[in-house]
Formats: sequence, C-alpha cells, structure tokens
Amino acid sequence: MKLDHNIPYKIYLGEDEIPRQWYNVRADMKNKPAPLLDPATGKPLTAEQLEPIFCKELVQQELDDETPYIDIPEEIQDFYKMYRPSPLVRAYCLEKKLDTPARIYYKFEGNNTSGSHKLNSAIAQAYYAKKQGLAGVTTETGAGQWGTALSMACAYLGLDCRVFMVKVSYEQKPFRREVMRTYGASVTPSPSMHTEVGRKICEAFPGTTGSLGCAISEAVEEATTHKGYRYVLGSVLNQVLLHQTVIGLETKTALDKYDIQPDMIIGCAGGGSNLGGLISPFVGEMLRGEKDYQIVAVEPASCPSFTRGKFAYDFCDTGHVCPLAKMYTLGSGFIPSANHAGGLRFHGMSSILSQLYHDGLMQARAVEQTSVFKAATEFARVEGILPAPESGHAIKVAMDEAIRCRETGEEKTIVFGLTGTGYFDMVAYQQFNDGEMSDHIPTDEELQKGFDGLPQVPGQD
Amino acid sequence: MKLDHNIPYKIYLGEDEIPRQWYNVRADMKNKPAPLLDPATGKPLTAEQLEPIFCKELVQQELDDETPYIDIPEEIQDFYKMYRPSPLVRAYCLEKKLDTPARIYYKFEGNNTSGSHKLNSAIAQAYYAKKQGLAGVTTETGAGQWGTALSMACAYLGLDCRVFMVKVSYEQKPFRREVMRTYGASVTPSPSMHTEVGRKICEAFPGTTGSLGCAISEAVEEATTHKGYRYVLGSVLNQVLLHQTVIGLETKTALDKYDIQPDMIIGCAGGGSNLGGLISPFVGEMLRGEKDYQIVAVEPASCPSFTRGKFAYDFCDTGHVCPLAKMYTLGSGFIPSANHAGGLRFHGMSSILSQLYHDGLMQARAVEQTSVFKAATEFARVEGILPAPESGHAIKVAMDEAIRCRETGEEKTIVFGLTGTGYFDMVAYQQFNDGEMSDHIPTDEELQKGFDGLPQVPGQD
Repeated sequence: MKLDHNIPYKIYLGEDEIPRQWYNVRADMKNKPAPLLDPATGKPLTAEQLEPIFCKELVQQELDDETPYIDIPEEIQDFYKMYRPSPLVRAYCLEKKLDTPARIYYKFEGNNTSGSHKLNSAIAQAYYAKKQGLAGVTTETGAGQWGTALSMACAYLGLDCRVFMVKVSYEQKPFRREVMRTYGASVTPSPSMHTEVGRKICEAFPGTTGSLGCAISEAVEEATTHKGYRYVLGSVLNQVLLHQTVIGLETKTALDKYDIQPDMIIGCAGGGSNLGGLISPFVGEMLRGEKDYQIVAVEPASCPSFTRGKFAYDFCDTGHVCPLAKMYTLGSGFIPSANHAGGLRFHGMSSILSQLYHDGLMQARAVEQTSVFKAATEFARVEGILPAPESGHAIKVAMDEAIRCRETGEEKTIVFGLTGTGYFDMVAYQQFNDGEMSDHIPTDEELQKGFDGLPQVPGQD
Repeated sequence: MKLDHNIPYKIYLGEDEIPRQWYNVRADMKNKPAPLLDPATGKPLTAEQLEPIFCKELVQQELDDETPYIDIPEEIQDFYKMYRPSPLVRAYCLEKKLDTPARIYYKFEGNNTSGSHKLNSAIAQAYYAKKQGLAGVTTETGAGQWGTALSMACAYLGLDCRVFMVKVSYEQKPFRREVMRTYGASVTPSPSMHTEVGRKICEAFPGTTGSLGCAISEAVEEATTHKGYRYVLGSVLNQVLLHQTVIGLETKTALDKYDIQPDMIIGCAGGGSNLGGLISPFVGEMLRGEKDYQIVAVEPASCPSFTRGKFAYDFCDTGHVCPLAKMYTLGSGFIPSANHAGGLRFHGMSSILSQLYHDGLMQARAVEQTSVFKAATEFARVEGILPAPESGHAIKVAMDEAIRCRETGEEKTIVFGLTGTGYFDMVAYQQFNDGEMSDHIPTDEELQKGFDGLPQVPGQD
C-alpha cells in the first residue's frame, strides 16, 4: 500500500468544522441561472406566487441570486452533527488495485440511514416548514432516497410527512417504504384515489404503475389543498443545491487542511443536487478567477440531459403543473428506458448547473449502466463500500481517469462524490450478477420526440 | 438540547488511536473458561485436533488463556482503517426525548457495508487463512451479517469464500444473498445436495427449510473435504471475542479522552461476540480490582440462554459435529420461536461470557421482541440511525434505565453497543408497523425438553 505521509484513509473534520453557512454560487455567477417562469404568462414567478406551494424562507432562498453566504440555523447545524461531517476518503485500495499514479479521494455521503446526501436538504426544508408553523409537508419519491431522508427529518422535528411513492417502486421496493413508515411517514402509492389528479389519471390509464411526474402532481395537490402543508422537492431547485453545498464546503476544508490540490472533480448528475453541492465552492473559485479545476458531470447514456439535451425552458414534471425552468432537457415527455439509477432518470437538470455547463465551466460524460455496475462492483470489493447505482456513475469515470493516468504516468488528484449506498438496490445488482443487465441508448428519433414537446416560450430558440 | 461542554455528538478517534493489539481477557480471569472437549473422549481438544478445521494461528488464539495482549497484524490494521475507528455517539437527542438526567453513549459499529461489527473478526480470520496459504474459507450464515462481513474480507484479500445460508433466509433475504455475491462469494442454500450431510438431511427431512445447525455441518464438511480450505465462525469462540475487543478498546480510549466514567455498560448477547468485545477491557479492570462497572447482557425472552439456561457442557451445533463447550445453554435441541433478531437465536453462549456471568461479573436481562421494536423505532426517530433488531435489545434496556434515572434523578452514565443497522430487516419492521408482531416466551416444559438433550460429560452436574 502506497500511503502518503500524514494523509489518513479517512479525513474526518471536527464538529466545529461543519460549515455554519451555505454558499450560494449564484452570487458569483456573471450569467445568472434563468428565472422560473409562470407557464400561463411566460413571466418570471414572484415570491407571492411561489409561497402557496413552498415555505416562505425557501422561496427567498430560491430567488436569491445575490447573497453569497446564507447562515445555517443552529437547529439544522445540530441535526447535521448527528451524521456530519462526512468523511473524505483516500481510495488507497482502489489506487493500488488500478496500479495508478493518480490520487483518488471520495466524499462519502452514505453514512446515515437515508443512505445518501438527500438528508442535507431534507432537514433544512423540514426545519423551515416547522419554523413557519406548518403541520406537515408533502413530496414524491421514486427510488426512495429522498422520501426516506424527508421522513427522518420530519420524525426528528415532529412534522407530518406525506409521501407519494411511484406505484411500481412502492411494490418493488417494500423495504424503502417500510423505512419511511418506521420514521412515521404516510406512504401512498401513486397514482392514488386520494387526490383529484390521481383519480383522473387512474381513470384515464387503468392499471398504470405511475411515474415521478404523476407523483409530483399528487404531492402538489395534497399540499395546496390542505391547510398548513407545503410541497418540498429533493433536487433540481436552487434552494436544494444551496443546502447541498455543505458537501463541497466540507470537502474543501478537508482538502485544504492537508494541502491537497484537486485537479478533477467528478459527480453523478440527475437533477443536480449532489453535483451542485459538491462543486459549488470550487466553481466559486473559478468564477472569481482564483483557481481552475476540471469538473465532470456523469450521467447515464440512457438519459443524457447534458450530453444530448437542449438548453431550453421546459416543464419540470410530466404533468405540467410545475413552473417552467431553463435547463438542459430531453423534454418533459421523454421517458428514459429502465435504468436502475432511479435518481438519474430525470429528463431535465438544475438551472444553475445548466448555466455553468452552457458557460463552459464544466464538462459532461454519459456512461452505460453495465459499465457502471462493473466499476461499482470492483470498487466495492476493494474499498468495502457498496455504492448506490447513481454513485457508480462517478466511480466509473474516476476509474477510467485513473487508468488513463496509469498509461500517461500523470499524478492527477481526483475527487469524486460517493453520494450513497446501494443496500436497497440489490435487485439491480442481482441482474448484473446474473448477467441479465443490458444497456439502452436512445436513438436520435426517440430524443426528437421529447424535443418536439418543448413548450413555446417567448424568446426561446 | 443539553450539550455538555467539550463533548461532541460523535467522538471520532484518529486512525493512530485504533488499537494495535487485541486484549485477551482470559489472561486476567482467575476462573478460566472451560476448555473445548472432544465429544468422543470427553477430553480437552488439542491444537493438533483443531487444526484440520481451523487455521493454525486461530487455533493458538483459541487456546491461549495467558497472553494478555496479542498484536494485530499490520494488514488487518490497514483494513480496520477503512471503517474504523467507529464513532462513540452521545445520544443527546434520545436523552432529551426521554427527559432523563442520565448520560447515554453508544458505540456504533454499523458504518460499514456488512452493517455490523462482524467485520472486525471476519478480516482477522480471513487474513490468517490467507497467511497460511489457504485457497479459501467456508462458513454458515443465518440472518446474513456474518456471511456479508466474511465475503467483504475475502474479496479484499482475494480469498475464495463459500457460504452456506439457511435455506429459509436464502429465500426470504435475497438482498443479503446478492450483497455476498456482489463481493464474489458463492452462496449455497442449506441443506443442499452439495455435501454428504446435506444430502442426508434433504433425504430424511424432504422440504426442510434448514437451520443454522445444519448449515454449520455442511460448512465444516466443505472445509474438511477440500484441500486448502478451513472453516470459520462469526461468534461464540474465544478467538472471535478476542478480535472484537477493538470495539471495547476504542470505546475505552474515547471515554478516557473526555474523562467520562461509565456506570453501566449494556450489550445484546446472542453468541456473545459483540458484548464480549465491548466489555472485555472494562471487565479486565474489574478482574484486576481497579474499577467497578454494572455490566448487562440483553437477550430475547424467546431464547433466554443466560436468564433461564443451564451452565453446562453442550454441543455448539444441532448437528453435533462440533466440539463440546461449557456455556449457558438451552440445549442444542432447543428451537427458539421465530424471533427477528436472527443473531440472537443461538441456544448457547460464549464460554468466556458464561464464566464471567457465572462468577457474578455481569448481569443479564431478557426482553420481549415487541418492546424491542418499540424502543428501536423511538430511537431511530430521534437519533436517525435505524438499528438492527439485535441492537434494539440493548437500546431497550438503555432506555428503560434512562427512564428509571428520570424517576430517581440519578445522573448515571450509560454506554451501550449499537452493533448494526436494520436495512435488511425491514420485513420485521413491517410486521411491527402493521401491528402483527407477537411475543413468545418458552414455557418451563419447552425448556426442559432442551435440557433433557444435554450430553453426558464426566464431571457435569
């Protein structure tokens, strides 16, 4: 084992080194992310228009393009202490296995019961709801990481939590459902007969197993038709990326502490919450002209928003009840083929990340799922952690890069985000273990169908 | 939140504070645990007799009653660094919830993919097998924590791993099985047609769903009939308790670092691996007359080895292929009712712990499963961690004690072992959530049947 002097396997910060402020990268962006539009008028949505759906303070955070640092309330800091700081791990065993001169680090966000980074924003959103005197929150969940995280946060604060879980996941992932119930959440398979939009969908499509878009519509209706409830979302939004900057800020503190200069920062990208949180402080340095990094977003080849999508205004949901956001998108009607990284199957992408990508501050790579599971399995066997399929995407590109370094001799320092664990994804691992997993890359014709559904917005190309 | 000055939520030691030696509590015991006996002759087993089954160095550790400290090889220390030191957590949120003056700490061993403390001994046993030039190891697993841990250790060292998994668990816990396969282990449902003993059992009991005793028999046959293989076991044995002392040693270092004096140390007890590891350094102080602690073993009321068993020589397995051990036992023929804490369903108990209990150095309490799940759920909601049902037993007694302190006003310092996570136990949580869980306490007549099967050994009462 090639151990660097003074650099431990795991860099754990002290609790006093947990960030006390989130970093709002928009403050340093010259080209701000485009505002959310009202689909009816095509005009930017105001705080007043957003407040019936989202908590008041979260609306402020959503719209704030100027304040660089936003205080983390003490109660949220206390909750963070229960599972943070998360370790920055030096992948000594992986480096040895790959026989690479590259130095590989990963920020591991899976050491909590929700199994992922989602908890960082869940507790913040639940906290502001509680502070506003609300009775509870509603949300949707697909793979279940977000729903689990929100259930945990609500249990801690004594807030009611109503989760609409895509019906097919509800049935295929009963364990995820039970974790949420154990934390006291009510979990309703979507579409349900519980909401008007659910009943309509059930009538129109009898026997449907649901979709994220449909679950969003039900969760929004549930929030807006019940006094004291608001809707919360686990990715895509600016506020979510803001909360997730605790990942990047801790990563930077840990690297600085040991005088480590990363060359390349890699993260998987679905809606962008983890990647945005990880890279924000580093992108801030780039925007301010202080440093330069190679930043890489990794997405599934089956749902290639960045690498093959269009930068355009689009609906965030298939049900078209949500505002329009400007983002790299495959069209809200695009249906990705079955890909086990449920967290990466979103048709669009965070507006912040979309703008950064458009401005050339980051790159993107698309990888196929079988190669992801191969890398994830190899990683698990030497590093001990069983990664979530989403995280496997970042691992795949980090390993590719480390192998390239072996060939060139380059001593590159690579940092990637290991967003979560795969304990609830064993059906996918089983398919891979049994050699029954396949890849699907959408054809240009399939993509065109999605683009054909993009909304008409004044000024849109 | 009532935060003590200077005591963080989580006490993380540095990697240089991971123990470099295991502590062998037998060296300080005046009454040594009784030796393993050859069932054929009734005489103590020699190293030569044990070496065809176990690795050479592990046999030495098994028989060594004298050496107080045994060096941890550097390769094992390196592996420990991947997931150790584990945090000692101050349960501030639980204290607040219970409104208790007690101070509660837990040593959390679940932050690794095997989800439990089992990895501490798995890597040690795999290492000695590798060092001896063996091709692989065999073992049995019930609930799957041990099999998972061993698979991880073998993957890391490039050792073949053959797991016999109780058939009913193989079918009911497919995710556990897939984790092991992902780590490259072969997993065979037991009884199987793969071994002679398995074929015999299948013939005698067609349609049987297997038992731990049967899986042990198959694993031992597999090891002894294949060149270059040995059998390894995850609990009960002296060597396993020795490896698990990293838990107690780290706990003691963390407590000493912050000048915390525990009054009460609590752990769940099945075969005794976690409890023995946690308490050994503290019991050592008691044995040497330096300090005094109240030590409590918690077992399920459905399988009450300590509280209702006999201290006698008995077989470690139902198939009677293993040596005789002197221990608190319900008889190798005792079949506990379905209790979801699979790791606590063993009829016997570690010889070391049995001797300590017999000598009055520790107490034992039996708790019912519904009360355990109630406590585990309450714990999860405030502390964030979803506990394994086994760990829930320790939580239940810690919470009872903290509530008692609320009534008496006593500022007791309680430390308990949180051995693992419950991600693969959601079927049990679901039963509890649905109100479908029940308790079963064996009658005296049921226990007598088990005692009637105790073997005749010279000198046995």
